[in-house]
Amino acid sequence: MSVYEEALKLHELHHGKLSIQPKVPCENAEDLALAYTPGVAQPCLEINKDPENAYRYTGKGNTVAVVTDGTAVLGLGDIGAVAGLPVMEGKALLMKRFADLDAFPICIDSKDPEEIIRVCKLISPGLGAINLEDISAPRCVEIERRLIEELDIPVFHDDQHGTAIVVLAALINGLRLSGKDPKQMKVIVNGVGAAGSSIIKMMYNYGFKNILALDSKGVLHPQKKDSYNALKQELLEYTNLNGENPASLKEALRGADVFIGVSQGNLLTQEDVAAMNEGCFIVALANPTPEIDYYEAKKGGAFIAATGRSDFPNQVNNLLAFPGIFRGALDAKATRITEEVKIAAAKAIAGLISDEELTPEYIIPSPFDERVVPAVSAAVKEACIASGYIRK
Amino acid sequence: MSVYEEALKLHELHHGKLSIQPKVPCENAEDLALAYTPGVAQPCLEINKDPENAYRYTGKGNTVAVVTDGTAVLGLGDIGAVAGLPVMEGKALLMKRFADLDAFPICIDSKDPEEIIRVCKLISPGLGAINLEDISAPRCVEIERRLIEELDIPVFHDDQHGTAIVVLAALINGLRLSGKDPKQMKVIVNGVGAAGSSIIKMMYNYGFKNILALDSKGVLHPQKKDSYNALKQELLEYTNLNGENPASLKEALRGADVFIGVSQGNLLTQEDVAAMNEGCFIVALANPTPEIDYYEAKKGGAFIAATGRSDFPNQVNNLLAFPGIFRGALDAKATRITEEVKIAAAKAIAGLISDEELTPEYIIPSPFDERVVPAVSAAVKEACIASGYIRK
Repeated sequence: MSVYEEALKLHELHHGKLSIQPKVPCENAEDLALAYTPGVAQPCLEINKDPENAYRYTGKGNTVAVVTDGTAVLGLGDIGAVAGLPVMEGKALLMKRFADLDAFPICIDSKDPEEIIRVCKLISPGLGAINLEDISAPRCVEIERRLIEELDIPVFHDDQHGTAIVVLAALINGLRLSGKDPKQMKVIVNGVGAAGSSIIKMMYNYGFKNILALDSKGVLHPQKKDSYNALKQELLEYTNLNGENPASLKEALRGADVFIGVSQGNLLTQEDVAAMNEGCFIVALANPTPEIDYYEAKKGGAFIAATGRSDFPNQVNNLLAFPGIFRGALDAKATRITEEVKIAAAKAIAGLISDEELTPEYIIPSPFDERVVPAVSAAVKEACIASGYIRK
Repeated sequence: MSVYEEALKLHELHHGKLSIQPKVPCENAEDLALAYTPGVAQPCLEINKDPENAYRYTGKGNTVAVVTDGTAVLGLGDIGAVAGLPVMEGKALLMKRFADLDAFPICIDSKDPEEIIRVCKLISPGLGAINLEDISAPRCVEIERRLIEELDIPVFHDDQHGTAIVVLAALINGLRLSGKDPKQMKVIVNGVGAAGSSIIKMMYNYGFKNILALDSKGVLHPQKKDSYNALKQELLEYTNLNGENPASLKEALRGADVFIGVSQGNLLTQEDVAAMNEGCFIVALANPTPEIDYYEAKKGGAFIAATGRSDFPNQVNNLLAFPGIFRGALDAKATRITEEVKIAAAKAIAGLISDEELTPEYIIPSPFDERVVPAVSAAVKEACIASGYIRK
């Protein structure tokens, strides 16, 4: 039986993956008088006096809504809000398993960014944080930006930043191993969707200043600015600062030090990697088939290679990031998750691998490494507090 | 320590009352491949083919959103969306404990009925049903009506119908005991808010045709129709069909057979009850102090009396209704909960007490009677199927 058939069977057997369970007893009239009327009036009144008390007397502070509109579900595209539900349940499941968070799916039956923003704002009183999920680019960037500005709870679009954080962790360990200076490295990012755009911003903020970004039409170039959407226009602040104009991805790669692929499978050959600078880094995230096979990249001379696949070394899996991010942000009483916080998370993931353990085949820890979530959440908590974006 | 202090302590100890737990294992890469990527793509695709498959492969069919705007929380009034959260968590807890439903709170930060309706509709793809809760009258009636019309999942405002169903159950057993004919009985309903309006409609539909309704200004009268809101105008279709005009509640009660109070405490005296017809029924639901004390009502000559209090006989507790209502409706694949379904629920609650057990002091079963939910859900399921409002 294939993994798909087996997964379908599992989903049918349990009718989904989540169960909502009581944390307090409810076996008799006395229990009821405390958990419900009349006793429940007291926490209500305390919260009415000071809304901050919701964090004390309810589950708000541990609750994450996993919000989608179903427009970019996995690699399946726009399959509709309800068809995204199995992924949202899965995400909520992982939140509990890895970070003891209480998360539930919200599938929004609208593709209008204003409506998605409005729903998130209107349901926010009961939420500790919002995880945006599988919302298509470039809408997802604007939706997240607006919610971060307009809400006082953390909002995090995992498809953008979860991947970016783990990619940066891999690169940080590549730098540790190679001793290279990010400022001297030329970076090619192929794909400027949700993940690509966040990868570019995080890499730039970390110290990679020479970045070329490519979409399906070629290199983003300042002269074409007027033809770009707002997201691509913004990416010109981070990329192609010298106004380069390579004719193709292959030409752009010549002499580059880093390739990041968030595009489509089988784009690069061993020869393309060989044409890059010595000791180059290859992060090929197209799923299930990477832009270049892990072993092909290595044969081409890549110093480090990473993909999204669990059957190759160095899997870029955003499960390394989001549970600890939300855990740390909620523990810190954070009101937003800043760029510095994300970089702190990447450093924490990278730092889990000791100098002795670190090899080109082991630059990213396993998501089942039990040290990951404590390390990420501690680093995120500290960075959130340092950011100043915390509740009084 | 008072029940209020103890309740506060309990809520603080656990930070709320709900926990979201996995139903499938997630301990290694193999588990992850089934519950999340890549396996999860398969249920997504099946649901994309046919949205009905969401009931097969996800928790949708067992999921109830408990939705409030915080405008009429318990007897506390408009305390705001987030201050209502402890009650919503409590309701969700009861849904699980009594009917194995997976319910979670949605606290909406708006008092605009259109926005509340819009949010419910937009988040409905992931939901099996919606329980509206603690939304003030008359807005709640219009919000519920619109959602019933515009959504294909059951929507039920418990404050309206949960109470009404249990009141009707009590009256049905009063009729069984007394042998009276509802058509011959004069009914006074004091209070035309959420519960009062539904009680009036259900009683009328059950067979009580001579009903007078009073608000704080007196008896609803056809000649005043133009000064009424839409809800009160609608209630004129069910009440005061003879155009009576008693000057006061006390005058209205003279010669009446049933008093239903959903108003305020200590309104009636023993003498007021004595002025009613012999063998009258008193249902005094003001909380925590009823319109008349249970024992005062009995001393005044009431044949049956019921209140909202657990320390008197015959507690009208909507916990008898809503878990079985939602369980039965979801089991039936219902798309709406009709008036006939609600009456079937009331009959099921009443029918649990056998002729041998039935006394004026025992006309309503205990919510901890384990037969209640199975009986209500079975009756509701059958009535839903008979109504024709079910998914294909």
